[in-house]
Amino acid sequence: MDKRNADAAALMAMSGLEALQALVEGRAPAPSISETMGFRLVAVAHGFVAFEGEPSKAVLNPMGVVHGGWALTLIDSACGAAGHTTLPAGVGYGTLETKGNFVRPILADTGTLRAEGRVLAQGRTIITAEAKITDAQGKLYAHGTSTCMIIRPEK
Amino acid sequence: MDKRNADAAALMAMSGLEALQALVEGRAPAPSISETMGFRLVAVAHGFVAFEGEPSKAVLNPMGVVHGGWALTLIDSACGAAGHTTLPAGVGYGTLETKGNFVRPILADTGTLRAEGRVLAQGRTIITAEAKITDAQGKLYAHGTSTCMIIRPEK
Amino acid sequence: MDKRNADAAALMAMSGLEALQALVEGRAPAPSISETMGFRLVAVAHGFVAFEGEPSKAVLNPMGVVHGGWALTLIDSACGAAGHTTLPAGVGYGTLETKGNFVRPILADTGTLRAEGRVLAQGRTIITAEAKITDAQGKLYAHGTSTCMIIRPEK
Amino acid sequence: MDKRNADAAALMAMSGLEALQALVEGRAPAPSISETMGFRLVAVAHGFVAFEGEPSKAVLNPMGVVHGGWALTLIDSACGAAGHTTLPAGVGYGTLETKGNFVRPILADTGTLRAEGRVLAQGRTIITAEAKITDAQGKLYAHGTSTCMIIRPEK
Repeated sequence: MDKRNADAAALMAMSGLEALQALVEGRAPAPSISETMGFRLVAVAHGFVAFEGEPSKAVLNPMGVVHGGWALTLIDSACGAAGHTTLPAGVGYGTLETKGNFVRPILADTGTLRAEGRVLAQGRTIITAEAKITDAQGKLYAHGTSTCMIIRPEK
Repeated sequence: MDKRNADAAALMAMSGLEALQALVEGRAPAPSISETMGFRLVAVAHGFVAFEGEPSKAVLNPMGVVHGGWALTLIDSACGAAGHTTLPAGVGYGTLETKGNFVRPILADTGTLRAEGRVLAQGRTIITAEAKITDAQGKLYAHGTSTCMIIRPEK
Repeated sequence: MDKRNADAAALMAMSGLEALQALVEGRAPAPSISETMGFRLVAVAHGFVAFEGEPSKAVLNPMGVVHGGWALTLIDSACGAAGHTTLPAGVGYGTLETKGNFVRPILADTGTLRAEGRVLAQGRTIITAEAKITDAQGKLYAHGTSTCMIIRPEK
Repeated sequence: MDKRNADAAALMAMSGLEALQALVEGRAPAPSISETMGFRLVAVAHGFVAFEGEPSKAVLNPMGVVHGGWALTLIDSACGAAGHTTLPAGVGYGTLETKGNFVRPILADTGTLRAEGRVLAQGRTIITAEAKITDAQGKLYAHGTSTCMIIRPEK
């Protein structure tokens, strides 16, 4: 088992809330996307997570503005992680679809943005969640939703 | 004017098709998101673009799978660029929203994937486009759509 | 000018809030979709509306369950009307896209459901809004968002 | 068992393709939404369906234009039914989410529109499909996608 699989197996042995709390506290290694895109998980609770991140010159589109993919990645992370907080140990999930609206341009020097994810509905198989990306003044930059499928171990 | 603004201004002086063709041919510098996420524009035509890219160990989620943000970034790029190909010089656009479905897991060793974007509808102010991400065998990994707004210079 | 156009012109002469308040109070005629789908506007405020409706045997799908189009119609109405409440007289809007998640089955005898719409973001040209459909106990049946474009009179 | 349940049970005893073919040929009763919204299933094949319908004065919004819910209902129907054509007898589905873009106004006198639905991806549990609404000249009025979950009988 390589290190990556070992990390994933360790996370799966915990409840979602425990696993994400371990990421917040740095007891579990941050996934590589976090460093690549410049964001980190900063808070978790049942049905809730918050990420914070700084857009950078590494994620610009041809017009010199932060690429929409940066906000979409944060929305996808926040929605998925919010759903994950509700799952017991050994139960995983996969995101089926994510949708995001861009309501204010994000620039390389916009500074720290916060993405909060909240579970909207949880069924036996499907979780839906929403995310909002705001700045320190509460101005909204992007918002979106995801549909996630709970993946239980085969019996 | 810093270099980034100069690059953007140069692109805006061309039609969308010319600007994107310049990117394909390397006559215009690739945006930073391309290197960060590992993809590049490889083909353009009126209402059509194709990107190719390789997911890498730099874009993994906590489970060791390629983060959904990677596919969303490609979908957002492909839809936006497809719309851009239809715009004359001096006319820009902004993406209002992007939605993507993940239909097959993407792994760090999945290899080269291709994202094709196509314009679905073009009005006076709004362009909608779709994108599909497939591998060399044509297997579909993700698909999505965007709604873009045409931004004309103030008169 | 036929009656329908006269009704539309009368609504356009009012602010969005006034026009929708006139619908709530029955001073303006309800649009035909309201009767066809069985719902009505019951409350409005700046950036907020509420509809109430009863699914019926007239909107069933082949499996005998209320068709998803019923909830989508309510979501589309609630999002669009929430945006409309923010517009001055003479300014209209068009909905660019609507997205809805179905999180609990709606049956012909589910009873009265309430769809609340709230503006999420308002720019110079674009309004985004969300809607949630709940029952009297607050159970969520569906939720969604819309992207609307403000249409100002040509100068 | 009331008549509606009997109709649903009869449909479930057939494969999706057989059930929908029975609807096309009038051997199974059209669901009530079809009459209420003015559309009907006209063609089916594996992974494909076509509906045709006429918007009417019964589905207008306050501005006298056909309500977005009409197109959304058609998109939801076309995507769901396209997925259904791929399912064996005894296997059902539920739509998790539907998204539609409105790209051209639909008026009460627009005439017959056609909604074609096509499966985009089919996994073990999830089907995604797209739909396009066009007129007889092929002009696009709306398009969208759905995510559907396959519901297999409990073992």
